[in-house]
Amino acid sequence: MSSGVKAELWSEDELIQKLDQLKLVSERLDVAPNVREDWTRKAQQRANEYLASLPDRKVLSGNDEAETETEEAVRSVLPIKEEPVSFDAALESFCTSVGDHMLMREGHPGYFAYVPGNSLYPAAIGDFLAAAFNPYALVDYACPAAVQMQHSLIRWVARLFGYPETCAGNLTSGGTGANLIAMATARDAKKLKAKDYHRCVIYMSELTHDGIAKVLHTIGMGEAVIRKIPVTERFEMDAEKLEEAIEIDKKEDLIPFVIAATAGTTDVGSVDPVAELADVAERHGVWLHVDACYGGFFVLCDSVKHLFKGVERADSFTCDPHKGLFVAFGTGIVMVRYWKHLLSSNRRALASYLQDRHTCAGQLNPEDLTFEQSTHFRAVRVWLPLQVFGVGTFRAALQEKVYLSRYLYHKLKAVPGLAVLEPQLSIVLFRYEDVPAGQHARDVTEFNLRLLGEVCRDGRVFIASTTVLGKVYLRACVLAFRTHREHVDTLVSALRNGLKQLLD
Amino acid sequence: MSSGVKAELWSEDELIQKLDQLKLVSERLDVAPNVREDWTRKAQQRANEYLASLPDRKVLSGNDEAETETEEAVRSVLPIKEEPVSFDAALESFCTSVGDHMLMREGHPGYFAYVPGNSLYPAAIGDFLAAAFNPYALVDYACPAAVQMQHSLIRWVARLFGYPETCAGNLTSGGTGANLIAMATARDAKKLKAKDYHRCVIYMSELTHDGIAKVLHTIGMGEAVIRKIPVTERFEMDAEKLEEAIEIDKKEDLIPFVIAATAGTTDVGSVDPVAELADVAERHGVWLHVDACYGGFFVLCDSVKHLFKGVERADSFTCDPHKGLFVAFGTGIVMVRYWKHLLSSNRRALASYLQDRHTCAGQLNPEDLTFEQSTHFRAVRVWLPLQVFGVGTFRAALQEKVYLSRYLYHKLKAVPGLAVLEPQLSIVLFRYEDVPAGQHARDVTEFNLRLLGEVCRDGRVFIASTTVLGKVYLRACVLAFRTHREHVDTLVSALRNGLKQLLD
Repeated sequence: MSSGVKAELWSEDELIQKLDQLKLVSERLDVAPNVREDWTRKAQQRANEYLASLPDRKVLSGNDEAETETEEAVRSVLPIKEEPVSFDAALESFCTSVGDHMLMREGHPGYFAYVPGNSLYPAAIGDFLAAAFNPYALVDYACPAAVQMQHSLIRWVARLFGYPETCAGNLTSGGTGANLIAMATARDAKKLKAKDYHRCVIYMSELTHDGIAKVLHTIGMGEAVIRKIPVTERFEMDAEKLEEAIEIDKKEDLIPFVIAATAGTTDVGSVDPVAELADVAERHGVWLHVDACYGGFFVLCDSVKHLFKGVERADSFTCDPHKGLFVAFGTGIVMVRYWKHLLSSNRRALASYLQDRHTCAGQLNPEDLTFEQSTHFRAVRVWLPLQVFGVGTFRAALQEKVYLSRYLYHKLKAVPGLAVLEPQLSIVLFRYEDVPAGQHARDVTEFNLRLLGEVCRDGRVFIASTTVLGKVYLRACVLAFRTHREHVDTLVSALRNGLKQLLD
Repeated sequence: MSSGVKAELWSEDELIQKLDQLKLVSERLDVAPNVREDWTRKAQQRANEYLASLPDRKVLSGNDEAETETEEAVRSVLPIKEEPVSFDAALESFCTSVGDHMLMREGHPGYFAYVPGNSLYPAAIGDFLAAAFNPYALVDYACPAAVQMQHSLIRWVARLFGYPETCAGNLTSGGTGANLIAMATARDAKKLKAKDYHRCVIYMSELTHDGIAKVLHTIGMGEAVIRKIPVTERFEMDAEKLEEAIEIDKKEDLIPFVIAATAGTTDVGSVDPVAELADVAERHGVWLHVDACYGGFFVLCDSVKHLFKGVERADSFTCDPHKGLFVAFGTGIVMVRYWKHLLSSNRRALASYLQDRHTCAGQLNPEDLTFEQSTHFRAVRVWLPLQVFGVGTFRAALQEKVYLSRYLYHKLKAVPGLAVLEPQLSIVLFRYEDVPAGQHARDVTEFNLRLLGEVCRDGRVFIASTTVLGKVYLRACVLAFRTHREHVDTLVSALRNGLKQLLD
């Protein structure tokens, strides 16, 4: 092969000279133990300062002043340059630009919008350990204990839901990656041909997360038919209407492919009747997938675990530790009922350069159970928090969130003029409906959006709005682990103040 | 909606009592500042011990003793239980099971197998900071500086390759995720219909990474035609033969879809003639993708950057910071020439519960440029090392790896009986061919695999074998940042010893 390195460098002596010079520079990458210690201590201090200040900061910034400050923050991100800067300068740039200007503070106790992100501290140490040791965690013959740690998590999740021993699962970067693997596995298990993709039907409810449709597109099935099944008055997919739709589709020579159930929905937290859907799926040979990304870990709570009955019969399901287990963004889980489906959808032929590798008998390697190859060692960021807190602490925290949403429901019901939907998991929807006579529906919507603005204005709490079956609601999702009763009280108080502002 | 929480809990007083009890448990998740400090210091100490010991440890364990120890290590991974364990116990479990029993030590200076993983220390701090602060880094209105940090990285990569200002890119979990996004974008930009997937042709060389075929399968195009174009004697895709194949396919009513070029190949490190392939792609309206996951960041080196000429004309390319920038596993990059293609393939309709969100004018949000939604804040694990070392240090380290492979080539050429292929980037292939007269090709293969065993046996160096165009070679890939001349000398010495063992 040719090479562009100048010919005069090819003599061994010249190469050695060049290499000795380059080593002096390149070995700077291998920082000394005391430097590692110093850098880590400083990063820890800044994290400590940030986390200690979190409850006193605004959860949401949005005014003009914040906008100017934000522009400055963006400018203060150090650009990438040839010459190094000091660690202190880089850390300062990170803390002042990113840390001081998170317009939405994930992990804040007043974060009730969307699905709150969290920042459980041992997850951060887990990520640190994963990167510092950097095992290749996807095959057991590279690091068997890393694979074991992942299997341990997967088995624990399987048992939580009563999933059979035939199952397999994997860790992903988040819920969408998990849903992607599940949908691709369904596609392959059903041995679908591309020429038939446009005849395949996926059944969702009106409240199914749009990420499922996106995933369908990603796996090449963008032309598949998306059939939105109506929900009952409890906002759950109507199993009878589902079955009717499947029967009609079969007569019309379509291919009922996947029922995408949700437990619970991002909009209202409703849990589809999975056991009934499983009956329908079995009768018609349709793959049942349950997206439990938001709600899945509530299965830990005695008071609501019955809602997840039937998930053990699903062909696949997904749940997100970075939601229900409060770890930082970056980890979803996909579970498939029969490991052979997951394996045959994802295992690839062995590359030549890997021909020496062997596989330990009877062990499934994560690498063969995902579309990915090299990834971050994700298990430790979930395993470490589960160890140091124990499952019981998560159980209590999740139960607290369920009860907090009931508490919020009670408090809001006591506010005159407010219509409130009874929560199933930890999401409460409400809207002010007591508009003066003669006003139109549009005015109700407008009033509630103004109310939203009032509630969020002072920055102590952050809620969002949503539209469910054509009606605009204000929406509070309780899932920050730092959220306790006093923060729900703050939300109620902000709401009462907002109403006062608008009505007086 | 119904709920399973017992009715007697529904009175507000009872709820409050329950909530106050649960808070006492759940607030344990919010660990105190001094505890965070203590835990982090201990994790840092263990990381320091591991990293300090790394060069003296074996890079590869494989004997019977190791196997028994490994079984013990697997058993010592703490299972997930209801009750917590101390942080010390969890950390100890991690260090003794994972840390002490990495059968293949990524980041070890003697790691010459596959593509070496690395564990640049500031990347670990970057992951720690990302998880501790946990910004939602995928939309600018949640944390503009986090998005800016990512844009800064993407722009830097674009400029390295001379990519036009029209481009957009994203961070992924690794090379396969990056290639997946590129292929799905190509599929969508070409407006392919599923009924035609089986007529679509993707052109690879015989040395293209099999991950590309896997990605095709994942994006629903498993029935597409994979056309393997022969390589030249330099192991580069033959542009003339590619054009012939495209012309034939067009006549046969097939749809030439993607040319998947590689810079450089995982097997031999050869760089396809991208500029010539770009000419072919332009003439025939075929999407040109360049997989530069392994080799891309060698563009930083004066001596080999000319090999990447033409990448600036590709429709998409990928490169992996967790390879060429030495950060721990978990970060790939996808780049697409026209941002509109990346956006239209990935942006989804806005969900109801996100209806309040607004988008800053003119800014592309990472969330709209990937199949993922919530992910780990990946930018900081790359940005921080680039800051504290400066691009110049990476440039020197990569140049050192290129020269080390030349140095290894020289050293191996001096070994009697050894045939050595001249490296383009940092991979050297060699095989012992001086078998006694009358022996068969099979004997050469067997001899070389025995030689591989001898070289790896003592655990100071780790190389692998591969098969290129039907011939088995031993393969050394130089890409651990800790690898310097003395480690290449160790490899050569281990090889000479191995030959002595086998031949004497």
